[in-house]
Amino acid sequence: MSSKPTIGFCGLGAMGFGMATHLVKSGYTVTGFDVWAPTLEKFAAAGGVPTSSLSESAKDKAFYIVMVATAQQAQSALFGDQGIVASLPKNATLLLCSTVPSSYAQAVERELGDVGRGDVYFIDAPVSGGAIRAADGTLSIMAGAKKEAIEKGQWLLEELSAPSKLFIVDGGVGAGSNMKMVHQVLAAIQILSLSEAFGFGARLGLDGQSVRDKVVGSEGWSWMFENRSVRTLKEDYFPGASALTIILKDVGIITSMARLKNFPSPLCTIAEQVYLSGVDRGWGPNDDAGMVRLWTSDPVSSIQCTLSAEEKEQKLKLVVDLLRVIHLCAAAESIAFAKHVGLPLPQLYELAVEAAGGSTMFKTFGAKMIPVLEGKGDGEEAVGSFLDDVKKVVDEAQSIKCPLYLGTGALNVLTMARGKGGKVGIGGLLGLYSS
Amino acid sequence: MSSKPTIGFCGLGAMGFGMATHLVKSGYTVTGFDVWAPTLEKFAAAGGVPTSSLSESAKDKAFYIVMVATAQQAQSALFGDQGIVASLPKNATLLLCSTVPSSYAQAVERELGDVGRGDVYFIDAPVSGGAIRAADGTLSIMAGAKKEAIEKGQWLLEELSAPSKLFIVDGGVGAGSNMKMVHQVLAAIQILSLSEAFGFGARLGLDGQSVRDKVVGSEGWSWMFENRSVRTLKEDYFPGASALTIILKDVGIITSMARLKNFPSPLCTIAEQVYLSGVDRGWGPNDDAGMVRLWTSDPVSSIQCTLSAEEKEQKLKLVVDLLRVIHLCAAAESIAFAKHVGLPLPQLYELAVEAAGGSTMFKTFGAKMIPVLEGKGDGEEAVGSFLDDVKKVVDEAQSIKCPLYLGTGALNVLTMARGKGGKVGIGGLLGLYSS
Repeated sequence: MSSKPTIGFCGLGAMGFGMATHLVKSGYTVTGFDVWAPTLEKFAAAGGVPTSSLSESAKDKAFYIVMVATAQQAQSALFGDQGIVASLPKNATLLLCSTVPSSYAQAVERELGDVGRGDVYFIDAPVSGGAIRAADGTLSIMAGAKKEAIEKGQWLLEELSAPSKLFIVDGGVGAGSNMKMVHQVLAAIQILSLSEAFGFGARLGLDGQSVRDKVVGSEGWSWMFENRSVRTLKEDYFPGASALTIILKDVGIITSMARLKNFPSPLCTIAEQVYLSGVDRGWGPNDDAGMVRLWTSDPVSSIQCTLSAEEKEQKLKLVVDLLRVIHLCAAAESIAFAKHVGLPLPQLYELAVEAAGGSTMFKTFGAKMIPVLEGKGDGEEAVGSFLDDVKKVVDEAQSIKCPLYLGTGALNVLTMARGKGGKVGIGGLLGLYSS
Repeated sequence: MSSKPTIGFCGLGAMGFGMATHLVKSGYTVTGFDVWAPTLEKFAAAGGVPTSSLSESAKDKAFYIVMVATAQQAQSALFGDQGIVASLPKNATLLLCSTVPSSYAQAVERELGDVGRGDVYFIDAPVSGGAIRAADGTLSIMAGAKKEAIEKGQWLLEELSAPSKLFIVDGGVGAGSNMKMVHQVLAAIQILSLSEAFGFGARLGLDGQSVRDKVVGSEGWSWMFENRSVRTLKEDYFPGASALTIILKDVGIITSMARLKNFPSPLCTIAEQVYLSGVDRGWGPNDDAGMVRLWTSDPVSSIQCTLSAEEKEQKLKLVVDLLRVIHLCAAAESIAFAKHVGLPLPQLYELAVEAAGGSTMFKTFGAKMIPVLEGKGDGEEAVGSFLDDVKKVVDEAQSIKCPLYLGTGALNVLTMARGKGGKVGIGGLLGLYSS
């Protein structure tokens, strides 16, 4: 009990609060800092040691976790006046669990050296899985660091993650963040795809519950769909569980890096512009599932479906097909980006398939894409039926004047991937992303 | 005077009214039909012969012009009960000047035969140029028909068009509509690009007048920008001169045909989704220049620019660069589509460069693209500087959370066109569109 080390923690938001209180429940003394006083009270009530002083949170803490929302916040907490780094004891282990650009994680490592704190064992360790898994200590974690740092911090990473969900990514500091970034390609696209699916469904006259029942268990399934659709059906957006600004920040990391690395990111780019239009409407603090309001101001659960059973099945199939095609292209965009930045593809697969980026399409087609990018497959596996399907979806959407941002983006990706002779194979699809 | 033939006319909207009254001024007796009574009164005041009977408008008229908004309206006016076709005299010449799918124009020719009116000389003759040029008889016209029909109708086409702006397109009925379609690729993209440019400018703190002054005369110029920006500065959208629903219909023709022909139309597709989102906001009947309201609810002319002269120049350059890059990709999308559907490229160039689809980029780079698609150029002409420029534009937009639908689309097009070794040439860009 008392032999367990004391842990410092900065950032008790939805994710951080769950992680920190999980550590408390596991018997650690956790000193938690946050700028929001009511959160500190809640943390105290949950058995944590609250502090409104960053230096207090770090003083004498051999292990420290930063879980703030952005790189800007991390920079200020770590290196600002009276910040964390200045107060950490010698040879402390420091985990940065926020989703940040890999270049930022690398800059932290460099700055530690520059300010004379090269003794700190620094781990770039972004997480995935949502607030519930954070509180259960069953997150997915993608950690990159020097070997000695991983050795120091591995026990703590294990405390926070499920046994099969701790991924040590080769490549040192930055590799964890890059892995999180390519995982978030899936997340960013699939968060919007669920709103697009519900919105399209609503315009087709389908009630939200029927859409959910059909999609879950179909090839249109994604972790995001199953997770967020509960909130969609209740209009639980205020604030819900995951603010639009969070996924907007993540997709911004993706598209910034894509520009820097000359990687085309067609669907993430579309998603980002649509998220920005949501922020323009004042929805930034609302749950990202609320993006469905771009398509319908009425709750999707309030729709009375008056279609015949046959029509309803036809239209539900269009919704599932929309999701299948978007998720196929999302898989290609994520895996090709991982290849582009030099990440181990099988590790991305293993990680994402069971994490918040998971989808039935990623599971099935991701497994076929990876050998192609590793030079072990011919890429002939045909995906032309997806092009046929998405054309029917877009025909229908156009006839009812329903915008499909991602669906039409996926249509263009597959059309561009179409080779001579009209075949669309996985190789052609992946080839679009490589130059 | 009395030797001039009497002309029947259906559809006295903004364009049709101008065309019909121009014929009146030129000394023809024009019997005009419209469903909207006040328009008929106006037409009578302008010297026309108004009628609320379609069959009356067609009876004894050896020449007839249809200028309604959509294929649906044309179908009903032509072939409905008491419609035009049933009343036209033998061997009449019939011009369909509406923008319709080429497949619809071809269906009209077929149906004329099916209903026993193979004697009618039918010309597929969509126009471009706006209401002012319609009223001046200086439109651009793209006409496709059998040789005999052209011979019959050429004098009337000449009455409506400027001397250098009547284009007889090889390929018979449908070829005119296809030419209009690929011209509208430019129009559809450039109508949205001007709102995106003003919107981006507003978010950068630039006043609308400065944006207009800078763009007109720069490489970011387009006919649409110069034409629409007058309305943007006055918020003259209610109804303005060209309803959003009109360009939405046109872009729908483009993307439907693109799906049918397996042609990727990335920027038109984006434009269509954004126009649909405008319709969702209730802006369908408003002028298309009002799309700028997606970016700013304040009039762009009300912005007080507080930037230093140097900052202002920097930011104006970003706006011009945004337009340059979008218009470069628009030129590629239009010309590649023309090639894809088998149209003569030099004719498209000659036509569009002086019509509503014109832009400085189309003029400069269109001239370089056509030889490449005709197998006469190597396509090495570098456009990589455009990629560098648009990255800076998107960096800035992302930092101020400004959506750029077309700008980011163009970024992805150029990134995908980037060849091995990092070069972006015209050949690579055009190659994206061909399979």
